[in-house]
Order: sequence, then structure tokens, then C-alpha cells
Amino acid sequence: MKTINISTRSRVQFVDITQRIAELVSNSHVNHGIAVIYSAHTTAGVTVNENADPDVVADLMNTLDRLVPRRGQYAHGEGNSDSHIKASMIGLSVTVPVENGQLMLGTWQGIYFCEFDGPRSRRVLVQLVAEKRDNPWNA
Amino acid sequence: MKTINISTRSRVQFVDITQRIAELVSNSHVNHGIAVIYSAHTTAGVTVNENADPDVVADLMNTLDRLVPRRGQYAHGEGNSDSHIKASMIGLSVTVPVENGQLMLGTWQGIYFCEFDGPRSRRVLVQLVAEKRDNPWNA
Amino acid sequence: MKTINISTRSRVQFVDITQRIAELVSNSHVNHGIAVIYSAHTTAGVTVNENADPDVVADLMNTLDRLVPRRGQYAHGEGNSDSHIKASMIGLSVTVPVENGQLMLGTWQGIYFCEFDGPRSRRVLVQLVAEKRDNPWNA
Repeated sequence: MKTINISTRSRVQFVDITQRIAELVSNSHVNHGIAVIYSAHTTAGVTVNENADPDVVADLMNTLDRLVPRRGQYAHGEGNSDSHIKASMIGLSVTVPVENGQLMLGTWQGIYFCEFDGPRSRRVLVQLVAEKRDNPWNA
Repeated sequence: MKTINISTRSRVQFVDITQRIAELVSNSHVNHGIAVIYSAHTTAGVTVNENADPDVVADLMNTLDRLVPRRGQYAHGEGNSDSHIKASMIGLSVTVPVENGQLMLGTWQGIYFCEFDGPRSRRVLVQLVAEKRDNPWNA
Repeated sequence: MKTINISTRSRVQFVDITQRIAELVSNSHVNHGIAVIYSAHTTAGVTVNENADPDVVADLMNTLDRLVPRRGQYAHGEGNSDSHIKASMIGLSVTVPVENGQLMLGTWQGIYFCEFDGPRSRRVLVQLVAEKRDNPWNA
């Protein structure tokens, strides 16, 4: 397992970590398998979305803010209930197929760390699981 | 890794791909493992939900439209910001346990490709990872 | 694959299953790998969130109720359309990295079974997939 350290600079910020994950996967020499990219936090998630136009993730952040506003009738006393809720709505991890040491991302797909309660120092865990070479699936 | 090609016919459409995935998994002869079903797109996702009554996925589509309407105050200029947002809310992939060459779906569970910006030609990647036979977990 | 049986007592209830999963994983003696925790139902999900202050999951349940109310204009006739929708929004499963027989959860992370249409008897499937010991990734 590998760890990626991320320093976020805003309360809500999506950080493109595609290249850092791709390098880890490339160095692993895995032929067939999956990469699990996992946020070890409860107020931050991981998602896959377009990385060509930054307006796409801006729209995603704004829509989540509209649906789950920071100020609301929450019981949790730390002022970050919205961050916890957004993390569970977006999800804590993504699982991406790997072939020949490459992430099998679609043309426009990038992997984003989704900060919902920054700025903070964060950790993303990357676990790679390779399929056995002799599985008939890969023949 | 295998690829499933899907042609969607509407802007928003949930396509039941359970049978196609089940056949791939059955042909793999995997005893213990997981199947990762992955949408290689940024305006389409994958989910698991009831496949007995089609009203269930209709309600899901309509509720997502209500929460994230097509017309709204979005920055992205292509008119499909809602599609990107719904994809990240539903998720890009599902991971299903496999035993003895079978998807371990619950009684009412089906696997749906979730088109949010069709009609289009789409690709779903299916990666199967088998557990080692000698793992004590499976003894 | 292992099965965890859960009896829920309310219509909406988040059950902390962290300890039960951790014990299964610990008994597996897996050095490097992943654990997939999977709800075999269409009106219940699985998520990871804070397990220190129970107000956090209460806020999450209440916010989902606000966004997807039980009473609404739904087509499905069983009165539990909201439960199906919440299950797909939260997700059916989580995948957690495993190292040296331990779930690599962050400090505040717990694994929750998310009942949206209880009380019921429920099943959570736990599949563990170990990485090969000789993968250079783990050297």
C-alpha cells in the first residue's frame, strides 16, 4: 500500500491526483488488476470526473453546497456536518481497473481528492491488487 | 479485463446489464473474488438497485433530476453539468463479490448502467480479481 | 466470503459494524489486500463516516430525509421509493485497504450499515482479496 499526502488550501477544494496515482501504478508493473484510491478521512472523499474543464468540478462543488449547505439545522457541534454528509454522498474511494501498468481511465476522466473541510493535511491510501496471471479470464 | 458496449437511446436512461456481467463472470471460472464494473465516462455511472419493478429506477432518475435539474446556474458551458454531477453522486463503479463463478447479488439486485447525457455509445469495463485458493479465509 | 447478519430496529438506522468487520479481517491473516463490505439489498447501503460523535450519522440520516422525503411523487407503489434512492446515493458497498490483517481506516472512520427501510433482517457480505506476496508493489 502506498500513501499520498495532500495539503489543501480551501475549505472546499477538489485536487486532481490523477498523475500521482498513475505514476504509482506504472511503477508497480501490474499486468491485470485494480487500484483502490481511498480517503482516510470523514470529511473528504474521492471521485472521478472530467479534468478538461475546471468548471465541471466547480459546478459539482457548488451543487453539493446548495443541497447540503454549511449552515443548517445540524446536531453535530463542530460546524462541519455538511462536510461529513458530502463525504458520504460522494464516497470515500474509487476503484479503477488496471491493465499493463496503466489506469484504465476514460478519455476525459481524472481522479479527484474532494476536500470538504479544509484547509488540512490529508492522506490518500492507494492499494493495488493484481489478478493471477494464470486466470483463464486473462487468456 | 472485458469491455461491454452499450448504445443508449435517451438523455437519461438506466440500462440493466446484470445478465451481460453475469455471463462474463460465469465464463471466468473464478472461485472466490470480486467483479468491478466501471463506467469509463464522466456523464454516466453504475449502480445496483431493484430490477423487479421498473418504477424504482424511474423514481431514482426523477429524484436526481429534481435535486440536480438540467437547467440551473452552472459554469460549464456544454449544457450537461447536471450529468457530470449525477455521475459523481451515483458513482462510477460498483464492486460485487463473486463466489463459484457467480455474482453474489441479493434477491432483488440488478446492475444498472446509468446514462445521464445520452443518447451515446458507451463502454463499461469489467475487471475480475480472484482471491488465492490457499488463503485461509477460504478454507 | 463471509456473511454478517444484522437485525435493524427502526425504519432508518445506521449500525456501526466496524468491529465485526475488523475481527473477520484479523482472522484472515492477509498481509496486503482489500476488504469489500457489500449490502445484498436494494433499500440499504454501506458507508464510512465518523464513529466518535453519533450526531454525525444522525445529521446524515436527517439530511437524506430532507433531500429524499418518504412521502413524495413516486411511481413505485410500495411506499419505500425513498429507501431505494438513498441506497443508490450512499452506495451499496465500501472497499477498504488491508495491511497486516488490519483495516486501514482513518482515525475517526467507522463502517456503517445504512438501513433505509427497516426494521428488517439484513445480510452484509464481506469479501477479502489478498495481493500476491511477490508483487514488486509490496517490496
